[in-house]
Amino acid sequence: MSSRKPLTAALALGLTLAAGAHADEGMWMPTQLPDLAKPLKAAGFKGNPGDLANVTAPPLSAVVRAGGGTGSFVSDDGLLLTNHHVAMGVIQYNTSPEHNLINDGFIATGRSDERAANPDFRVLVTVGFDKVTDEVLRDARGKTGRAYFDAVDHASKQLVAECEKEGNIRCSVADMYYGTDFYRIRQLELSDVRLVYAPPRAIGNYGDEIDNFMWPRHTGDFTLLRAYVGKDGKPAPYSVDNVPYHPPAHLKMAIDGPKTGDYAMLAGYPGITYRHRTAAEFAGQIDAVLPRRVAVFQQMIDTIEAASAKDAQARTRYASQLQSLKNNRKRAAGELEGLLRSDAKAQRAADEAAMLQATDAKYRGDIQSLLTSLSSGASVGERDLLLDLLAAQSQLLRSALTLERLRIESAKPDAERDTGYQQRDLALIEGVLKQVQRRYDPAIEKALLTTLLTRYQQLPDAQRVPEFDAAFGRTPAALAKTLDTLYANTHLGDEAERLSRFAVAKEGRALARDPLIDLAGPLVAAQLRLDDERKTREGEQLRLRPAYMQALFAWRAKQGRAVYPDANRTLRISYGKVEALSPRDAVHFDPVTTVAGIVEKNTNAYPFDAPKPLLAAIAKGDFGSTADPALKTQTVNFLTNLDTTGGNSGSPVLNAKGELIGLNFDSNWESVSASWWFDPRFKRAVHVDMRYLRWLLAKVYPAPELLKEMGVPAE
Amino acid sequence: MSSRKPLTAALALGLTLAAGAHADEGMWMPTQLPDLAKPLKAAGFKGNPGDLANVTAPPLSAVVRAGGGTGSFVSDDGLLLTNHHVAMGVIQYNTSPEHNLINDGFIATGRSDERAANPDFRVLVTVGFDKVTDEVLRDARGKTGRAYFDAVDHASKQLVAECEKEGNIRCSVADMYYGTDFYRIRQLELSDVRLVYAPPRAIGNYGDEIDNFMWPRHTGDFTLLRAYVGKDGKPAPYSVDNVPYHPPAHLKMAIDGPKTGDYAMLAGYPGITYRHRTAAEFAGQIDAVLPRRVAVFQQMIDTIEAASAKDAQARTRYASQLQSLKNNRKRAAGELEGLLRSDAKAQRAADEAAMLQATDAKYRGDIQSLLTSLSSGASVGERDLLLDLLAAQSQLLRSALTLERLRIESAKPDAERDTGYQQRDLALIEGVLKQVQRRYDPAIEKALLTTLLTRYQQLPDAQRVPEFDAAFGRTPAALAKTLDTLYANTHLGDEAERLSRFAVAKEGRALARDPLIDLAGPLVAAQLRLDDERKTREGEQLRLRPAYMQALFAWRAKQGRAVYPDANRTLRISYGKVEALSPRDAVHFDPVTTVAGIVEKNTNAYPFDAPKPLLAAIAKGDFGSTADPALKTQTVNFLTNLDTTGGNSGSPVLNAKGELIGLNFDSNWESVSASWWFDPRFKRAVHVDMRYLRWLLAKVYPAPELLKEMGVPAE
Repeated sequence: MSSRKPLTAALALGLTLAAGAHADEGMWMPTQLPDLAKPLKAAGFKGNPGDLANVTAPPLSAVVRAGGGTGSFVSDDGLLLTNHHVAMGVIQYNTSPEHNLINDGFIATGRSDERAANPDFRVLVTVGFDKVTDEVLRDARGKTGRAYFDAVDHASKQLVAECEKEGNIRCSVADMYYGTDFYRIRQLELSDVRLVYAPPRAIGNYGDEIDNFMWPRHTGDFTLLRAYVGKDGKPAPYSVDNVPYHPPAHLKMAIDGPKTGDYAMLAGYPGITYRHRTAAEFAGQIDAVLPRRVAVFQQMIDTIEAASAKDAQARTRYASQLQSLKNNRKRAAGELEGLLRSDAKAQRAADEAAMLQATDAKYRGDIQSLLTSLSSGASVGERDLLLDLLAAQSQLLRSALTLERLRIESAKPDAERDTGYQQRDLALIEGVLKQVQRRYDPAIEKALLTTLLTRYQQLPDAQRVPEFDAAFGRTPAALAKTLDTLYANTHLGDEAERLSRFAVAKEGRALARDPLIDLAGPLVAAQLRLDDERKTREGEQLRLRPAYMQALFAWRAKQGRAVYPDANRTLRISYGKVEALSPRDAVHFDPVTTVAGIVEKNTNAYPFDAPKPLLAAIAKGDFGSTADPALKTQTVNFLTNLDTTGGNSGSPVLNAKGELIGLNFDSNWESVSASWWFDPRFKRAVHVDMRYLRWLLAKVYPAPELLKEMGVPAE
Repeated sequence: MSSRKPLTAALALGLTLAAGAHADEGMWMPTQLPDLAKPLKAAGFKGNPGDLANVTAPPLSAVVRAGGGTGSFVSDDGLLLTNHHVAMGVIQYNTSPEHNLINDGFIATGRSDERAANPDFRVLVTVGFDKVTDEVLRDARGKTGRAYFDAVDHASKQLVAECEKEGNIRCSVADMYYGTDFYRIRQLELSDVRLVYAPPRAIGNYGDEIDNFMWPRHTGDFTLLRAYVGKDGKPAPYSVDNVPYHPPAHLKMAIDGPKTGDYAMLAGYPGITYRHRTAAEFAGQIDAVLPRRVAVFQQMIDTIEAASAKDAQARTRYASQLQSLKNNRKRAAGELEGLLRSDAKAQRAADEAAMLQATDAKYRGDIQSLLTSLSSGASVGERDLLLDLLAAQSQLLRSALTLERLRIESAKPDAERDTGYQQRDLALIEGVLKQVQRRYDPAIEKALLTTLLTRYQQLPDAQRVPEFDAAFGRTPAALAKTLDTLYANTHLGDEAERLSRFAVAKEGRALARDPLIDLAGPLVAAQLRLDDERKTREGEQLRLRPAYMQALFAWRAKQGRAVYPDANRTLRISYGKVEALSPRDAVHFDPVTTVAGIVEKNTNAYPFDAPKPLLAAIAKGDFGSTADPALKTQTVNFLTNLDTTGGNSGSPVLNAKGELIGLNFDSNWESVSASWWFDPRFKRAVHVDMRYLRWLLAKVYPAPELLKEMGVPAE
């Protein structure tokens, strides 16, 4: 099976999208766009598709990674537009009891008043995007399993190390189409970034969690930053002598706004999608993974609520863990609901069955092997979830497992240690060991472990792990006795006991005994073995999945459809249109909201506490050049059918002429399941209308110089 | 001022509504409809308005009071249509562990299988509606205040007593236009009512509290009953020998369903509205009453939650009180929100100012006196609320106040005792005294009283009451000490102590001493004095408000508008049309929902646990003759702009030809404030589409004989 020729995505790239077939779905690599010229034109794009192909040339070179999201340059002097929530760390860093920039917002009075971002905030400008498939796979060929995994991993690390030698450049290797193609990405790392303009929290995050994922929306989720470089034009740490960065390109702010049916496109760095996973993986997600997550999270929620019902202090300690479990449960339930609503399992299964029918015989062996490997991974899915949660959702047990693992890793040279246990991670580990006191209650920890391990005890023999069976017993009675004894006798509840062992562990030396530490020895050994098994499976899948992708490329070609790689935090473009949403029986939402909704939602209490100056300006009705000509009022947010996922926060939204009309900041709840399945009936992206930004800067919290810098009217 | 002539509403009745002026607002007395012929025709009514004038002739004689709501006869054999929630007591009464009619629904296999209603369920058929203004006011004329009140009260009671002499007839006197006109209503009282058909709870109450007040809605909130009478055709208690009642009229089920813009009308017994209250009362409601209710309820919610945070048993005991406070708070907040949204205060003030400007001088003196009396009542509004809550929201204090009051009332002949303390009320009082155990916690009762009395202590001197000041002190410290001492020493927490005093109190004898009983003595004396002051004010207002109404009649006449009396549980008609709702920025709701929404909402868990047979029938898509021709699917609920309020539950909705198209069962949340102000933008009523009922009876839970009886196709 290793005689197969190097695989490429050539088939996928050389296609012309059949008009209408899944239009609007797609997170395209810019290099694919020239091949999509026809559907782009049909959708209404007025520019030259070839101009969108090069990530290092205008206009895409204006789109950058900013913090954890996306940003775009909007002036030649490095003015950078991103989301308020993406820049939240920057605003927070500049907030003090005297100057609450979060609540009050911020307008720099001039360049010298712009405020330095937190030191770890970065803007990354892509300056290179090169295919390195041959280099990455050269040593892997002929290998299987773990060896294949290690060969790819090693080659990638070597490419990155070589690339980063020149300095000020951050490099990475991106895997496209699941091991089919690899690209080396080179990014300029700008670390002197400054806060220029932020609206008050009650505009930038109006509605907060209550409106999160909701439409209609009324949030001004934007902030303006500015990137600086040394006088030599090169990246430099913060210095008063630094000068504004001149980006390779910047976007032009549109004058007209969006309306239903208008062409729209968006560029950004979507995080992760699973659209091209196998039908078996879809079925597993829908039938097993998501229902299991919902059930386990619900059990943990019930456990914490019951165990803390009579203990206010315990409730406080577990409040944040409980909230996070509830969010995770809600998210999993929403994803499941969406996949069921879209009938994704049956649709994907029918599509794959037809594909396999048509697949070239040469791929069939690898595809069969892939399905076998995936099935073996899926068969231990519940075990892996439970073992992960045992550590992630406990305090003392996690401390013991972490200390034991740190001891083992610290015995190796730093570079060979596993991620998370290197020198650079020590401060984080110490922090975790210290915060136990504020988050731990012995009765609740025992109750949570009982819930998880009782579920674990019900697993079939093949899923269980001898070391865990030995440690916790095979019956509820044995489990109860074990936990009672462990927590009655452990000293890890004492911070000094944890920190003294931390000091020893980070030097790779033996830990002082404790019941939980003794328990951790065999458990960590088992975890490392399971980890190795996982990497072996992943290596096999990395080797085999390209055959599945080739079958998919060929099948889509027959359908007249191109294939985009699943999202992986690299720059992508999606295009579509401004579109209303009718998510449920008898319910219709307009695609554009207006300031009337701000007033309607306002309660004068968080999170609907619209600032007085905003309410006054709305009441005054002085919207000037930013008013919508048809609606005769000021718009706020709008909706498109663009294909987005987490990571697209801050993505610029462009009109048919390539001008900036919006700023992506959220999706609707109905599209939570879009990471697996794009359903055009329900998938929408939520954007700030740039006319709202312009109005705020012109009339409410004025910053006329910034409007001038962006080349738009200041009234 | 007593020389004024007897007032009538003649002006109000003789008007023609100017087309378009507040069309759709109005809960008209049937006798007004001939005068509304023009606007009725303009709205699309195809029948003869004169036919709607007589409540004792067809078709209105088909509309009856049923339980706490409205019902209508739909066959000549006494088949009666009302809401599932109106008939809930009947269904519950016939439910046993073996036969859960609530969950499973019920279909009688034949007449002999129809199940008797709970003994206190009544159907009232109106057989007389006569103006008795002169009789009611004869003795009142020349009197003022409490004497006026008592004269009206006495005359009304006498009219009722005379009227009920013939037996099987229930009589009442209704006050129309606030003391302007009085009508005697004679109603046939049918007590043998039987359950014929009820859908399962998951249809009849699909969505329960979550969907309550919500639109879009998907609830089959209907039930079919049948009224029986003795063989002589006269009302009789339940007997197997009874025969179906032949109503004076029954409604004809329509074949076609509603669509946007269609004419619709509704008849029923709306409870209470305040539309014709003075501008000062509107201002008081918006500026004082509602904000005060929201604040006080919120304080009580916070108090219970804080005081029970560490006590699971206490939380259980106060769970239902807490839920009720939350509902009351939500309701008050919703009403306030709606009145503010509609700018009701300013609109009512402007309207009244213009009216007073145009008012005949002869009414001005009475109107001024009315405003003074209202103002004196409003000035003690907060005190009255707090004193009411002291009793209503406590257990031991309420027990003491009730026992003391019962002792005083029981010393009088039964007929002279106040309502609530007569012989017939004793079982209820005993029940209240017994249930203390399940609802009482001393720490929480003290905390609640502290919250209420601390607020009371802040009231200005003029609002406070000497007896309450003396009992609880004037400072927080005195209050705390008093409550601590009272609750440390009272024995009323002991059921036997309460019941032994109950035995003595109901004979009017002195109660054994106890700190709370000792306290109750002066407090009840004060309550009786305040009660007398209230009745004096109400007597004055009853005397004076007719002048205000005459001014309003004249003013509306100038505007070309008729005036309906505020709702008072008498039969009314409203007319309007099927209309969509756009309640918020960018949000639009269709006026008709479909079975697709049932599937979308279904979670298989209460309250969205649609029955399997229903889901299967929807999936099958076999909608036959009941499918909507345009939507090509089965409809469920629809929306009109008809003027309704609580009590309209179960009202039949008729089309332009007077055929039955819907069954009213709810309003939308945005119209909670409509009891004060009708805002045509937001006021909607929610109905069951009769095609949904017909489909369920034809295809899902079949009852072909009933469809035949109602004269509609059984498929």
